[in-house]
Amino acid sequence: MAQEQELYFEDFHPGMKFDSLRSYKVTADEIKEFAERYDPQPFHLDQSAGESSFFKGLAASGWLTSAIVMRLRVESIHVAGGMIGAGVEEMRWTHPVRPGDSLRTEAEIMGVRHSQSRPQYGIVRSRTTCYNQNDEVVLRSIVNFLAPLRPKGQQNS
Amino acid sequence: MAQEQELYFEDFHPGMKFDSLRSYKVTADEIKEFAERYDPQPFHLDQSAGESSFFKGLAASGWLTSAIVMRLRVESIHVAGGMIGAGVEEMRWTHPVRPGDSLRTEAEIMGVRHSQSRPQYGIVRSRTTCYNQNDEVVLRSIVNFLAPLRPKGQQNS
Repeated sequence: MAQEQELYFEDFHPGMKFDSLRSYKVTADEIKEFAERYDPQPFHLDQSAGESSFFKGLAASGWLTSAIVMRLRVESIHVAGGMIGAGVEEMRWTHPVRPGDSLRTEAEIMGVRHSQSRPQYGIVRSRTTCYNQNDEVVLRSIVNFLAPLRPKGQQNS
Repeated sequence: MAQEQELYFEDFHPGMKFDSLRSYKVTADEIKEFAERYDPQPFHLDQSAGESSFFKGLAASGWLTSAIVMRLRVESIHVAGGMIGAGVEEMRWTHPVRPGDSLRTEAEIMGVRHSQSRPQYGIVRSRTTCYNQNDEVVLRSIVNFLAPLRPKGQQNS
């Protein structure tokens, strides 16, 4: 599927897959900077504090990992008008993210349904798996997003 | 409950409430800066692009709102050894977050259970509601986190 094409609701089907277009390299600086603002806990801020913690080393906030996953999804799934989240059904952080990790995502469409409250939109249910450079799964999620119905009279290009 | 006290698994009970200790003021700069890094979509990056979008104005990435909620939770729920996420059961973005909004959270403990895989930890299930300055709900979530069992011989302080 051409990634440049903007996708309408009618273009999404269960089983469609969207791989991230690249890997995202995570640095110690980014881990610490994010933690200072949003998750100021010792194991996200300091290498030696991390070593004596649950994580046995500096680890990224799970919310940083979630944000990186959003970045990779936005780059690889081009919803017409933009990707608007309609809620997370579940999200698990399954392995620590470390400085130097390279993250990539695989997303799969699980289902599509029309929106009751917004008749001009459909809801697309997607499962995303985020892997590090060793193919360890670091995050799994099921997220719903909105996709607009194709305007009437516009052909499927 | 004294917020300075570090809480062990045994300290958590269903019905306990933890309000954020402050409001978090969201600026247009923070919305745009976060979007540039993690969610580079027009309605998160630019006021006028936002006005012609679904959001009818500049709106924060839902993942920025999630990160701010984590910040407010970390400040107000002091788990011994730190708050370690054990997964999101659900999360909904129920209202756009705008420049100038002041966000606060209310968290409630829903349940506690011992961890099968980590005998020295319990799992605490929490529901969090994030409000703006008009008491509109902008985010709701159910998140599980780990809490260590109180070391043997240590009194409940």
